[in-house]
Amino acid sequence: MKATNTAGYEAPIGLTADPVVFTLLDGRLCVLLARRLEEPQRGMFSLPGGFVGASEAPSETAERKLREKTGVGSVHLEQLRTYADPARDPRGWLPTIAYMALVRPETLPEETPAEREASWHPVDRLPELALDHATIVDDGIWRLHARVGDKVWFVRKALALLPEPFTLRQAQQLYEALRGEVVDAANFRRDMRGTGLLEDTGSQRSEGPGRPGRLYRRV
Amino acid sequence: MKATNTAGYEAPIGLTADPVVFTLLDGRLCVLLARRLEEPQRGMFSLPGGFVGASEAPSETAERKLREKTGVGSVHLEQLRTYADPARDPRGWLPTIAYMALVRPETLPEETPAEREASWHPVDRLPELALDHATIVDDGIWRLHARVGDKVWFVRKALALLPEPFTLRQAQQLYEALRGEVVDAANFRRDMRGTGLLEDTGSQRSEGPGRPGRLYRRV
Repeated sequence: MKATNTAGYEAPIGLTADPVVFTLLDGRLCVLLARRLEEPQRGMFSLPGGFVGASEAPSETAERKLREKTGVGSVHLEQLRTYADPARDPRGWLPTIAYMALVRPETLPEETPAEREASWHPVDRLPELALDHATIVDDGIWRLHARVGDKVWFVRKALALLPEPFTLRQAQQLYEALRGEVVDAANFRRDMRGTGLLEDTGSQRSEGPGRPGRLYRRV
Repeated sequence: MKATNTAGYEAPIGLTADPVVFTLLDGRLCVLLARRLEEPQRGMFSLPGGFVGASEAPSETAERKLREKTGVGSVHLEQLRTYADPARDPRGWLPTIAYMALVRPETLPEETPAEREASWHPVDRLPELALDHATIVDDGIWRLHARVGDKVWFVRKALALLPEPFTLRQAQQLYEALRGEVVDAANFRRDMRGTGLLEDTGSQRSEGPGRPGRLYRRV
């Protein structure tokens, strides 16, 4: 299906906005999905987005749809990328603007809209996703890998996922899960201290065998 | 003006794609602009973009419009950001997907489409731009600053702007212009060698007073 419009231009049949919301759960990077209650591909898991209204900024739509479909409240959404391949949606030419956020797992309330099954899914074990949402999630993972490579961004934004105080070992586990690769512990510790954004609480905590770890918080 | 469409959704009146093409000219960061030959804001300088056709990927549109309006041939366009504020265009709800490229100045041919005045403009002395194009250019500059901060990206992509062989002093001048800040020469030289992506030609060249500079090329 193609659309024409009253303004005389070739035009998309609409515009959607899709939030890609990540968290760390049990040490694994997860993304928030919900089942589609509408056609096409009703019943499949997808990103919890929807149609942008004519008087709404797309980022507002992404936040509104996220709330309606999953119960997740206000989050900081960063624009990820726009997908506008004419063949991406069976309904017609329907571009979507994707947004990305990184939140704590408890941001998803226990009570969520019925039938939607809003839930966290490990990115390395995703169900089949509607439309081109698997591609969008994949691009989000790559953006996250890149963002986290900036140690200052990591401390300022990603470390907010850990309850304070935390050890540098916990910070490293988070970093490795979000970065998608293992890092050298000594280099990591030096880089963390080098940001000047961590404060040593003076306390320590034992985490299994080995020396207890010093406890830090973000300044 | 708002549009409705035959598919029954609230829909934009169209979709455009705008290329933000940068170069370094006489040591200054410049962006490629062309005059609008159509309403609205006919005659003003703007990014050389245009309407996406229903069977065209927006990146293809950006490249096609760039060629039609400026004569610049195929370039590597990276998606920058999408602007979809309902008020951004007086014609109605008209989102645009912006793309970014970094090219040599001679990529702009001497013979360009008449009346368009396709030309390089230093980013710190831009004319008044149509629509929200000043914002788009500004976002492009910030993206470029961020990209260049990655030394590997700088060597692989940005150094292609310099004729080979070049001195590290030339490389530093390029870096500072694209990065938007002055850097320490010793650190810069160490970082450049650290990428392992530069080859010492064994030759040297005098550039004014002081020791002649070693000449390098990219591996």
